[in-house]
Amino acid sequence: MQQLLDHIAEIVGRDHLLTGEAVRQRNADWFTHSPCEAAAIVRPANTEQLSRVMALCHAAGQPVVTHGGLTGVVHGAVAAPNELAVSLERMTAIEAVDPVGGTLTAQAGVPLQRVQEAAVEIGMQFPVDLGARGSCTIGGNIATNAGGIRVIRYGMMRQQVLGLEAVLAGGRVISSMNTMLKNNAGYDLKQLFIGSEGTLGIVTRAVLRLQPALPSEQCALVSVPSFEALTRLLNLAPRRIGLSAFEALWNSHYRLMTEESGAHTPPLATDSPFYAILESQGMDTERDAEQFQALLEEAFEAELITDAVLASSEAQRQAIWAIREDIEALVRTLKPMFSFDISLPIPAMETYVEGLEQRLAEAFPGVARLVAFGHLGDGNLHIMVTVRDAAAECRRAVEQLVYAPLAEIGGSVSAEHGIGLEKRDYLHFSRSEEEVATMRLLKQALDPKGLLNPGKVLG
Amino acid sequence: MQQLLDHIAEIVGRDHLLTGEAVRQRNADWFTHSPCEAAAIVRPANTEQLSRVMALCHAAGQPVVTHGGLTGVVHGAVAAPNELAVSLERMTAIEAVDPVGGTLTAQAGVPLQRVQEAAVEIGMQFPVDLGARGSCTIGGNIATNAGGIRVIRYGMMRQQVLGLEAVLAGGRVISSMNTMLKNNAGYDLKQLFIGSEGTLGIVTRAVLRLQPALPSEQCALVSVPSFEALTRLLNLAPRRIGLSAFEALWNSHYRLMTEESGAHTPPLATDSPFYAILESQGMDTERDAEQFQALLEEAFEAELITDAVLASSEAQRQAIWAIREDIEALVRTLKPMFSFDISLPIPAMETYVEGLEQRLAEAFPGVARLVAFGHLGDGNLHIMVTVRDAAAECRRAVEQLVYAPLAEIGGSVSAEHGIGLEKRDYLHFSRSEEEVATMRLLKQALDPKGLLNPGKVLG
Repeated sequence: MQQLLDHIAEIVGRDHLLTGEAVRQRNADWFTHSPCEAAAIVRPANTEQLSRVMALCHAAGQPVVTHGGLTGVVHGAVAAPNELAVSLERMTAIEAVDPVGGTLTAQAGVPLQRVQEAAVEIGMQFPVDLGARGSCTIGGNIATNAGGIRVIRYGMMRQQVLGLEAVLAGGRVISSMNTMLKNNAGYDLKQLFIGSEGTLGIVTRAVLRLQPALPSEQCALVSVPSFEALTRLLNLAPRRIGLSAFEALWNSHYRLMTEESGAHTPPLATDSPFYAILESQGMDTERDAEQFQALLEEAFEAELITDAVLASSEAQRQAIWAIREDIEALVRTLKPMFSFDISLPIPAMETYVEGLEQRLAEAFPGVARLVAFGHLGDGNLHIMVTVRDAAAECRRAVEQLVYAPLAEIGGSVSAEHGIGLEKRDYLHFSRSEEEVATMRLLKQALDPKGLLNPGKVLG
Repeated sequence: MQQLLDHIAEIVGRDHLLTGEAVRQRNADWFTHSPCEAAAIVRPANTEQLSRVMALCHAAGQPVVTHGGLTGVVHGAVAAPNELAVSLERMTAIEAVDPVGGTLTAQAGVPLQRVQEAAVEIGMQFPVDLGARGSCTIGGNIATNAGGIRVIRYGMMRQQVLGLEAVLAGGRVISSMNTMLKNNAGYDLKQLFIGSEGTLGIVTRAVLRLQPALPSEQCALVSVPSFEALTRLLNLAPRRIGLSAFEALWNSHYRLMTEESGAHTPPLATDSPFYAILESQGMDTERDAEQFQALLEEAFEAELITDAVLASSEAQRQAIWAIREDIEALVRTLKPMFSFDISLPIPAMETYVEGLEQRLAEAFPGVARLVAFGHLGDGNLHIMVTVRDAAAECRRAVEQLVYAPLAEIGGSVSAEHGIGLEKRDYLHFSRSEEEVATMRLLKQALDPKGLLNPGKVLG
């Protein structure tokens, strides 16, 4: 390997090939905090350097793991001692912002938040948003098809990508930097690299679609008397307001985040079976507030909600969202905690959660506990489980209980986090043999030596 | 081949294997009106039958062309005498409509209009809309990634497909009937079959995403004094109204459709260099009308428009749209007419159209004429050219003039119509050698014998 590393150092410069302690000082990923074990970390300055590095690795049969912001939660960027990590941290230029076409062209290493800010500077917005915005990178967002809280309105990362450039396993550069909303000239190759977690190619640059900024934002927390009322509210809301988020909190979650942990003052009584956070974005603050108020009144009269608090200031808005987003309070109360990100058809959710609670109680009597919340409109639930024991066999047992029922109801073991290493053994609950075989066909076609992020997704 | 046909007849039933005159009575496609030349037309009743037919064809090395509604315009469904056509005309069931999840599950042969109507019945909408809605099928819309007039708001067909089922060349059924907005469990295989024009697999069923119905619709035709004003108006409109369509008409188009052809009374004087049709969709007719009116006033004061007519009735709305959609009047005035569907970055459009007019005038002095209009917000232009001569060499010469400049400005030879046979030789103007090579890799991986829609897209 030393010979290969010497050649790579000639391409990227000695300073940009990290080895030994410099590698170990970095984390493997955000969740584990264990040191990175890669043989070396390569930091190319541009696509051309990366292409040459990949050609060398291909010739040498050297496996490669791509590093973005390392904020993933499924161990998708973990690198073994025989693997080389490629970090795109030097490719951080925003190359173009086009207010007429409403596009932004960025290198893969640009943090999400810088893209959001660059959009705001020209009076637009980039609508993908998630907690890791300051660290996660556009390349990582694309490779994992990131979701977040505004999917119900704007879709996932896939829908924001108009064009991209990727380097294939052999070093070939696929440049599909399309800037138009419409382009049906042959196969849409960029789809291959979105959400395939670095196993089919390395994303180096992208053209992103921007959206008009919407200056008015309304937000409310409501108490909901039943799951049926929750789904009817979800159906009603987009007919009355410019709905941009609809988050559901099971009582287990709301009560823990407020009363039990003491982390947040409960804005509404804690005895309702469900709560929801509704957010709208629009163009006219006064009118939007009226519409929002009218929706709440209508929902109250139809007995879809029993109580509500409408944020009347930015501080109140943040206080409502904090109940949803404060993962630390969750971890503190439930540790050791197993965290799940699944999706399933909305009509199946209530029964699924009740069934899971029951199965957990049977398997871990007296200690099991489940907290559920999530992006209801997207069919996406986050489920936190503790059995007060972090042992690997406990984790495996809980994973089985969480994932196995999804097969029958057409759910997914991963809504937005991806598969990585963590969910690889459960892929078959969500994908048929024929689907997995076809994924392997693609992997074989694009990376015949299996050098790109080995073992992730398909194993 | 007779032996193969006998086996196929056993699977689908003798009545559903058309041969001879029954085949010749059908058109090859909507544009040519020439008879279908396929060896036979197979009409499977369901996915299982199709799977068995495809397995037989694969074993026999028999090429297959899929037929939906035959409304395509790039000869993507033309079948040669040695080819078998598979028509999905018997697979016309809407299998499920879920108002809670907002999804509709349909077989591939369902006409677009029936999906739209089924959505309306539950108070929702299916937003893809195009002139061929009564005949084109969901399977064809998916295979060609159909566009239409509401892409600016809702995206193309690709964005409406949550899940799909497809039969591969060898008969393997890939069933990815996902119903959730979010599913990151491995590669998103459905993307392979969307927009690949039946060359990678045959779409048999799909889960479509529905949108809330928006009862209020506003529409106006405006006169725009310059291309720069047109782009500024496009930038302003989505900040003021719920913009759902933004169509631009060059003076050449507007004048022809009104004054010259006599087909439509001009609602505005015919001396403006550009016109635009703006449409908004919203929830509250009164408020939306106020907002729309306010936008027009603001645009007038900012000198982005010089005149406007706001539709105050459904008849007026239809009269405005008829100027845009009356293709017959165009054909009558310009015949023999060559029709183009391209996309290019919006800032490059004005110069492109002017340059093309000039090159046409030089190549065909005294007879060449160009008319331009299209979905400006999507970067999509429709360009109609006549040189008063339909000869193949004239067509080739005009195609060269239209397509060649797109390479340099990053445009596409096909915005929404696809490649089929018609644009195959021009794919290289929009896609690099590396891109085409990667498309061939996919084709080779999924259809190694090259039996699916042979010669289309890649040749």
